[in-house]
Amino acid sequence: MKEIKNISFIGSGNVASHLAIALFRNNFSIKQVFSKSFKNANSLAKKVNAQPIESMSQLSNNADLYIIAVPDDAIENIINQFPFKDKLLVHTSGSVNLESFSKKQFQHFGIFYPLQTFSKKIAVDFKHIPFCLEANTSANLKVIEKITKQLSDKVYHVNSEQRKSLHLAAVFACNFSNNMYQIAFDICQQNQLNFDILKPLIVETANKIVNQTPLEAQTGPAKRNDVKTIEKHLALLDNQKKYQEIYRLVTENILSN
Amino acid sequence: MKEIKNISFIGSGNVASHLAIALFRNNFSIKQVFSKSFKNANSLAKKVNAQPIESMSQLSNNADLYIIAVPDDAIENIINQFPFKDKLLVHTSGSVNLESFSKKQFQHFGIFYPLQTFSKKIAVDFKHIPFCLEANTSANLKVIEKITKQLSDKVYHVNSEQRKSLHLAAVFACNFSNNMYQIAFDICQQNQLNFDILKPLIVETANKIVNQTPLEAQTGPAKRNDVKTIEKHLALLDNQKKYQEIYRLVTENILSN
Repeated sequence: MKEIKNISFIGSGNVASHLAIALFRNNFSIKQVFSKSFKNANSLAKKVNAQPIESMSQLSNNADLYIIAVPDDAIENIINQFPFKDKLLVHTSGSVNLESFSKKQFQHFGIFYPLQTFSKKIAVDFKHIPFCLEANTSANLKVIEKITKQLSDKVYHVNSEQRKSLHLAAVFACNFSNNMYQIAFDICQQNQLNFDILKPLIVETANKIVNQTPLEAQTGPAKRNDVKTIEKHLALLDNQKKYQEIYRLVTENILSN
Repeated sequence: MKEIKNISFIGSGNVASHLAIALFRNNFSIKQVFSKSFKNANSLAKKVNAQPIESMSQLSNNADLYIIAVPDDAIENIINQFPFKDKLLVHTSGSVNLESFSKKQFQHFGIFYPLQTFSKKIAVDFKHIPFCLEANTSANLKVIEKITKQLSDKVYHVNSEQRKSLHLAAVFACNFSNNMYQIAFDICQQNQLNFDILKPLIVETANKIVNQTPLEAQTGPAKRNDVKTIEKHLALLDNQKKYQEIYRLVTENILSN
């Protein structure tokens, strides 16, 4: 198996930053960090002792692995510009499939998708973050797997078809549940209520599904088919049609389970 | 201030059970537990050394405080049957207001609403559960507050008008976010994906809002206005119109923030 030691990053956002720092701490050498914004490239490069670059033409072939961690809709463009057909190239996206590489005649490629929500401000412990891996050959999969196991205990093999659905599931589980918090926050603000009152509830709701299925964990007026309370809530939302529509749809969905 | 020592429970569900056990452990004496189902009344009564009763006519006047912890839509009926006009009577509901008592000429009443999602199976540490209190007089509020502070560090005064909105906010924050997990679970099952992959993400998403506002914590394709990914996701949901409609609405809501 090829030994990976030198890694370059294409991207300098949340995922790139957390990953580059974690790999650097695990004794990988980070060679270059590319970003269209030199300032961003430089900010991350300094932290991992790498060279910042702001043009893909400056990319050196001195790395064994190139990690593309840019917004999903920028990946194709990066792949088009990537010059080394024989280097191992991976991206970290949940929604871009393996074909994006194969149609460009790369020889070694894969996907290395950490399923977590990253914020620049909040430190990440990769140990418990699931990584979903895929590669064009079983040899490349082993190489990627070996690196991943140095970061995380939770390594899954997920093919491109599954990963698309997984990413969609993650949007519901993470982005949309967070938007439910946002609606709750907004309702609190409108009524001079301290959002802190809801925080223990939110944390407990998430913790419950570690040991129960969401269906088992479901509570509330819709679950009890408590029509009177549902009607009161819909009436309270009469001036906020968007929230009212979301309330109605999600309630119907709970009722249908 | 009247010293409360003896408490009776009307109800034997999740909230009643957790509260009765917590109060019993804090050296309150639980006198009676009422449930229409004698089996349920008996099951809880045994745990708190109380007398189980299955008819409201068996209710004794030997308690200083009566806690109604039944489904919201059963509260009015219980209040109509409650025989002691001079006893302190409270309910634990987020959605039933104080007027339900006053129109029945009770002298001492209030609301004692623990904002948490309770499951029979999962133990509850009341210490960190917010209690929202209200009463018909400041003297009664003090009595209820004194009891509450023996259970929890988080005591809030919330009036009936606010509590209605708080309950609505809690439905979004808890019940609806759990339904987002359920949709994610369902998508995983349909694609032979282990739902465990999503659990760290779900827990982290909830934990993030302890120190950030939900708006600051928001990530995902809608937040980035990543139209290509949103369209892919909507296409994936083409056979599940209900999920597709929820996806569309919540995405619009995130985009409008």
